[in-house]
Amino acid sequence: MSVLPSSFETLIDKFAALPGVGRKSAQRLAFFVISMTDETAQSFADAITDAKRTIRECAVCCNLSEDEVCPVCSNTRRNPRIVCVVSDPKGVLAIERAREFGGVYHVLHGTISPLSGVTPDDLRIRELVARVADGGCDEVILATNPDTEGETTARYIARLIEPFGVRTTRLAYGIPVGSSLEFADDATLTRALEGRSEYN
Amino acid sequence: MSVLPSSFETLIDKFAALPGVGRKSAQRLAFFVISMTDETAQSFADAITDAKRTIRECAVCCNLSEDEVCPVCSNTRRNPRIVCVVSDPKGVLAIERAREFGGVYHVLHGTISPLSGVTPDDLRIRELVARVADGGCDEVILATNPDTEGETTARYIARLIEPFGVRTTRLAYGIPVGSSLEFADDATLTRALEGRSEYN
Repeated sequence: MSVLPSSFETLIDKFAALPGVGRKSAQRLAFFVISMTDETAQSFADAITDAKRTIRECAVCCNLSEDEVCPVCSNTRRNPRIVCVVSDPKGVLAIERAREFGGVYHVLHGTISPLSGVTPDDLRIRELVARVADGGCDEVILATNPDTEGETTARYIARLIEPFGVRTTRLAYGIPVGSSLEFADDATLTRALEGRSEYN
Repeated sequence: MSVLPSSFETLIDKFAALPGVGRKSAQRLAFFVISMTDETAQSFADAITDAKRTIRECAVCCNLSEDEVCPVCSNTRRNPRIVCVVSDPKGVLAIERAREFGGVYHVLHGTISPLSGVTPDDLRIRELVARVADGGCDEVILATNPDTEGETTARYIARLIEPFGVRTTRLAYGIPVGSSLEFADDATLTRALEGRSEYN
């Protein structure tokens, strides 16, 4: 017999099913929900159902969107001919934060990962190839993460779109700005050396 | 202009309002919710509203309960004359886990903390004193955490119930000082229960 109400155990289970949330944390979160006012708890529950109900993928770039076409793709001040390919919407957020990029995006929703059973068919690669094949872009920037899966995905896409003759680039690798040489790992240093540019 | 749907930002805000969840984690959790099936997301939302709707405080011990009186208080095989006082329902869970204690509980829902503005009036101390004054118990085990606030609360309660002449004990320091009940292992909790001493 449990000493806690079953609806409470259910709530703990739900939190524990979230990524990075262990049993102890889930319990703490559930207790916090119980301590909320009815209104706060209700608006939390509503936020979950609302987000699920209203969010879909942009018909152009596959980023999360409330509209048929997302704000970036429908923004006329952005250059639709430069497409930055990221593995997930977090990549879009990261690049937008830099306030440097004036093109548009393509969100793959994952990276090719044979070990996890993620094949190219599970990603929005077909949609990307269609965009390129339509002659809609001049440059594809491959901005997947600089890890094995990201590299594999970038290489796979580069080979697929090669026949269309668009410029295909990859984000530069190197020492993070504001960081120090001594904290950079070997792979990063190797890439930083390889990618060195004229200094003047 | 945000690149993410507003309902998504709202969901991130809700997660970020939870204890121990930073902005980055909240974003990760929100992305996870979006990737859930509609059914899973709905049952998560329902778990929140159900828990809030169905859970109240036990009329006897103030622990979280779905019924007027909680399963522990209504269990005739438990000794209602030995009352273990804990600061929150997590304390009940922790002690129940040790399977050693056959008495009942009293949940304070907090500890006295002048710095956080928590006074004795904010806790279920009045209800505890009423239980003792009614002559309903032979022993009060003060099982608040062995930290400053827990000690302050234990001492405050001990002084309040002293006139009633019931045996007042404190959990033994099997629990590492400065730690919290919920992180104690079963063996430590068992030792702490066995070695409880007179408190004055």
